Amino acid sequence: MAESTNVRLRLPLLCIILEVILIILFGALVEYNEDTHPKQWNANKTHSATRNDYENEFYYRYPSFQDVHVMIFVGFGFLMTFLQRYGFSSVGFNFLIAAFSLQWATLMQGFLHGLHHGKIQVGVTSMINADFCTGSVLISFGAVLGKTSPVQLLVMAIFEVTLFAVNEFILLSLLGANDAGGSMTIHTFGAYFGLVVTRVLYRPNLDKSKHRNSSVYHSDLFAMIGTIYLWMFWPSFNSAITSYGDPQHRTAMNTYYSLASCTLATFAFSALVNPEGKLDMVHIQNAALAGGVAVGTAGEMMLTAFGSMIVGFLAGTISVLGYKYLTPILESKLKIQDTCGIHNLHGMPGVLGAVVGAVTAALASSAEYGEGLQKVFGEGEWDPKSKGAFQAISLAVTLGMALFGGLLTGFILKLPIYGAPPDTHCFEDGVYWEVPGEEEGHNELNEVATPNEMEKLSS
Amino acid sequence: MAESTNVRLRLPLLCIILEVILIILFGALVEYNEDTHPKQWNANKTHSATRNDYENEFYYRYPSFQDVHVMIFVGFGFLMTFLQRYGFSSVGFNFLIAAFSLQWATLMQGFLHGLHHGKIQVGVTSMINADFCTGSVLISFGAVLGKTSPVQLLVMAIFEVTLFAVNEFILLSLLGANDAGGSMTIHTFGAYFGLVVTRVLYRPNLDKSKHRNSSVYHSDLFAMIGTIYLWMFWPSFNSAITSYGDPQHRTAMNTYYSLASCTLATFAFSALVNPEGKLDMVHIQNAALAGGVAVGTAGEMMLTAFGSMIVGFLAGTISVLGYKYLTPILESKLKIQDTCGIHNLHGMPGVLGAVVGAVTAALASSAEYGEGLQKVFGEGEWDPKSKGAFQAISLAVTLGMALFGGLLTGFILKLPIYGAPPDTHCFEDGVYWEVPGEEEGHNELNEVATPNEMEKLSS
Amino acid sequence: MAESTNVRLRLPLLCIILEVILIILFGALVEYNEDTHPKQWNANKTHSATRNDYENEFYYRYPSFQDVHVMIFVGFGFLMTFLQRYGFSSVGFNFLIAAFSLQWATLMQGFLHGLHHGKIQVGVTSMINADFCTGSVLISFGAVLGKTSPVQLLVMAIFEVTLFAVNEFILLSLLGANDAGGSMTIHTFGAYFGLVVTRVLYRPNLDKSKHRNSSVYHSDLFAMIGTIYLWMFWPSFNSAITSYGDPQHRTAMNTYYSLASCTLATFAFSALVNPEGKLDMVHIQNAALAGGVAVGTAGEMMLTAFGSMIVGFLAGTISVLGYKYLTPILESKLKIQDTCGIHNLHGMPGVLGAVVGAVTAALASSAEYGEGLQKVFGEGEWDPKSKGAFQAISLAVTLGMALFGGLLTGFILKLPIYGAPPDTHCFEDGVYWEVPGEEEGHNELNEVATPNEMEKLSS
Repeated sequence: MAESTNVRLRLPLLCIILEVILIILFGALVEYNEDTHPKQWNANKTHSATRNDYENEFYYRYPSFQDVHVMIFVGFGFLMTFLQRYGFSSVGFNFLIAAFSLQWATLMQGFLHGLHHGKIQVGVTSMINADFCTGSVLISFGAVLGKTSPVQLLVMAIFEVTLFAVNEFILLSLLGANDAGGSMTIHTFGAYFGLVVTRVLYRPNLDKSKHRNSSVYHSDLFAMIGTIYLWMFWPSFNSAITSYGDPQHRTAMNTYYSLASCTLATFAFSALVNPEGKLDMVHIQNAALAGGVAVGTAGEMMLTAFGSMIVGFLAGTISVLGYKYLTPILESKLKIQDTCGIHNLHGMPGVLGAVVGAVTAALASSAEYGEGLQKVFGEGEWDPKSKGAFQAISLAVTLGMALFGGLLTGFILKLPIYGAPPDTHCFEDGVYWEVPGEEEGHNELNEVATPNEMEKLSS
Repeated sequence: MAESTNVRLRLPLLCIILEVILIILFGALVEYNEDTHPKQWNANKTHSATRNDYENEFYYRYPSFQDVHVMIFVGFGFLMTFLQRYGFSSVGFNFLIAAFSLQWATLMQGFLHGLHHGKIQVGVTSMINADFCTGSVLISFGAVLGKTSPVQLLVMAIFEVTLFAVNEFILLSLLGANDAGGSMTIHTFGAYFGLVVTRVLYRPNLDKSKHRNSSVYHSDLFAMIGTIYLWMFWPSFNSAITSYGDPQHRTAMNTYYSLASCTLATFAFSALVNPEGKLDMVHIQNAALAGGVAVGTAGEMMLTAFGSMIVGFLAGTISVLGYKYLTPILESKLKIQDTCGIHNLHGMPGVLGAVVGAVTAALASSAEYGEGLQKVFGEGEWDPKSKGAFQAISLAVTLGMALFGGLLTGFILKLPIYGAPPDTHCFEDGVYWEVPGEEEGHNELNEVATPNEMEKLSS
Repeated sequence: MAESTNVRLRLPLLCIILEVILIILFGALVEYNEDTHPKQWNANKTHSATRNDYENEFYYRYPSFQDVHVMIFVGFGFLMTFLQRYGFSSVGFNFLIAAFSLQWATLMQGFLHGLHHGKIQVGVTSMINADFCTGSVLISFGAVLGKTSPVQLLVMAIFEVTLFAVNEFILLSLLGANDAGGSMTIHTFGAYFGLVVTRVLYRPNLDKSKHRNSSVYHSDLFAMIGTIYLWMFWPSFNSAITSYGDPQHRTAMNTYYSLASCTLATFAFSALVNPEGKLDMVHIQNAALAGGVAVGTAGEMMLTAFGSMIVGFLAGTISVLGYKYLTPILESKLKIQDTCGIHNLHGMPGVLGAVVGAVTAALASSAEYGEGLQKVFGEGEWDPKSKGAFQAISLAVTLGMALFGGLLTGFILKLPIYGAPPDTHCFEDGVYWEVPGEEEGHNELNEVATPNEMEKLSS
């Protein structure tokens, strides 16, 4: 007899304990930053170095934050509704683990990125960073989608957020790397972390749920809601925490062109790899987004529209080819069951983005950037070659952290205490949700809404 | 024989008469404010007290306005599509009464909140306020969803908007209350108004439509679109009309944390109250939003992330428990048929928000807020205790206005002249909409899109 | 035997060739403008005429850009999912041709609207303009929806974008016309271009696909996602490229009121033209948007809320009447098969908008606008009568360009080389997409998710 999937006690207990811990830690450690604190902000305003209300970081960052927020909750959530019977779980568990992760990330990132008199200061920038970290967890969720209980997902989030923050700290603070849109910190880390977790959780008999591991017509349309929102708002994602002015503007534009080019590559190769030239929704839903991933590091640099379009085209191409040829091999040879194909959308394009970032940084010069150089690469003497090297090292560190973290987390998640679904009931909402009937509804309405009756009513 | 539901003359007549009246009143009473009037704005710019274009209120408010707008039309509209056969009406009637209400609200609020030389001045802030008032009507719509004709809903909106504006005037202008996110003016008022209306319209034989008063699989997914948009943009809602700078920033952040915490509470209690530990979509769709309601008054104050998370957790908890245990009692004992459970999402959390607001205001001090105190609580001498008292009185006034207004409106809506649906045909789009077949479509496509035929085509 | 619909080689080849050409041209011709170029922006900042970061055009335009972007990809894309079996193609082809068009438009518009030392300079404003041009192509797509291959659509986009840019250049640069929201350049042009194309592509035997040329229940709900997003963000669309300050603010507000009024007219006439007073989703999905089209030219002027509401009411009225009475005549008498009824949503309301714009411009005076007159109508001596005349001439030019361009493009698209669907398989995703089964899925889930089994699992 398999483990019971009844999480009646486990899920509430875990949620309540986690939230209570979060509340206590927030009470002890978190305070408003100077742009959200009424006393500090207004003191800043009236004293010597005056800042006007329109200079509050809110007005520079909040529209971007909201776009990122939409990507996290609608984008990731609906992208994963493509499965025929896993829509509730896709949107619902996405919602749950994102709501937890953004709180936990605020603490972990705040702790590592610098306390102020022992306190973590929060504002819209920390909100964006917390959402970014959450994105990484949701990428990993894509690999294990349909095969994990909500309890497992929360446990995974605890570890992944923590390790994300450590990796981010090493990259940004110790190595001084650039990674505004997170090609490395978010996409590469999240993808390889998730792939290792799903490898450890390998299910040899997953075939028993094969009939549910596919889409139906309307579930593919719901998924397209997620895709399109991710695609549209990716320029905001990559530019959300860049420096004010030209870098934010430039990053958004580079991402826009990369994605447009990526979309044409995706349609081209999706038709090309199909014997009848038919397009595959899996490719359109996912590979068209790879262009956003691949300019996540270099987008703020002088990549130019031209460079962005080349990168986007490459990203779309490798992503479609990955879905078609690599994913089946990963599953059969390496026993990596990657439900959403995150290796193709986040893994390879993330690595591509890291490489592009290293090269673009190594080519940067103050002749080209003028005084904008510091805005992008920070203060201090400028040595493009060593900068490029540090970017490359950052990729290696990220891969190492993801593999180690995924391995650790995977083995913890393997314990038979989380109410994971049996092989026969993966990809099935009914395991964790009250699911309404479908056919009954349909018959009902045919029975009720006959034209005759309706006519009588309205006569 | 029941009343005819044919609204062929009634609905067009009412719409046209209302719009003509609106147009005449707008022509007579409404003018551009100084930030939208070309002469005034540019005169302001060039004269002594210069204001630059970036100081136009448009740039502070419009992104928030658009988020609020999405909540009103997508958020509320899709949240109510959870019913299996009432999607057209949910989104459609939501659309109709919102489009009417925002125009009517502009006049009522403008009239009460201060004429300028006998004119109502409009700009982005009045647009936000009109959308807020509309939100209140849509909350009430949730209580009577499925049981009312569009004619009834428009009549309800006429009265509710008017009374909303009066109540808002009493609270904000006479009592000097704070309620930026509308815990009292929007949520408490809208909820109890709607509950009284649905009590007056009590249908003892509603059981005859019981089989349609539930969701199907895809309707629950459509509803999640509404939920997630409401959840994501609630920070914009609560902060949309706060003062520039730190208050707007702080309010958004407090709401963000309250909602995150609320979501964990919702999942916890939804699983806990189910014998098999299964999550209920009704809870996730609704209770996870209660955290936004409950910080609608105190969000702009020094509630802190810590305080916001506690409030959010409480709100989610009482909301789930309300859905599980209170709603059935309200229906069986008090004859309140509350289709969407607005008492759990807006009623109780709204009252909680009012209480939290009163307490937080009573604890405010200039030691804590510095010069920010006036920005939040307005000019004049500061007496926190009496401020707290006025906040509490505001809640009482709101409840009184809602009960009185709902009673009056309910009895007007009871007249058998609006083409309301019979008990046997509630929750049914076919009464007011041309509804396309469903099964025909399905068979059709199976018949047509056989792989064989398709193969021939593409050969 | 009909032409094969297998586009395995044609579609990839066209996509790749187009993208490679685009990349080469971008490499040769496109550079960052002074608000996105790190050297120029920061030089501007520190020299005499200092500009601060908050004055970067990004902060004035990017939120509007994102709203426009949502309209293009979600709005247009989902609006067209109303067909029962064409959802993949509606969203998917919309995605493809939009991604291509925005790149091609950047070049065409940049080339015509002024090179800087032989280079096209890009920034957020060029991104908005490119999205606008794309909107025009998507309007035309609505006319030929379901009857064209993706190869045809890309070819159409090549020509339409080019001619759009020429027409826009004549109107804005040569005739000095105002058309911020594109009543003429976008809507009138896109509509009549598309109508002529579909006329040339007339299919006498389209009846054979008639059973698929209609909606099902859920496809109508998906379409409402498109409608509501277009409706909500239209204020951003019309105001996206107006001058900073009062014009942008005023345009958004005028559009808001026009749309609200239009919605009431739409519901009124939809019920009125139906024998049983039932509302028709086609009207609500489309005609309610005509108010945004009709204030596309005059919205930035002193149209006032009053004037906007009158225009919106008229637009909604003629749009519904067009769907009911004109579309069938266009098809039977003029052989214009207009799948989405773009003549009613974009054609007539676009012409109305052009006329309203001409009249409003002719009535403008510096007494009314003050120094705001130049902000709206540009520098130079002000002659309202000749301005009005030039606006009217612009409409005539637009109609001429659309008819000529549509004719040319139509005949090119008639060549039997693009893999167009046969008359028997129009409005069918299966021709170009891998389509998952639907019924199988349904049965599967009933079979699997029996309450009994689920109970056992969770015990």
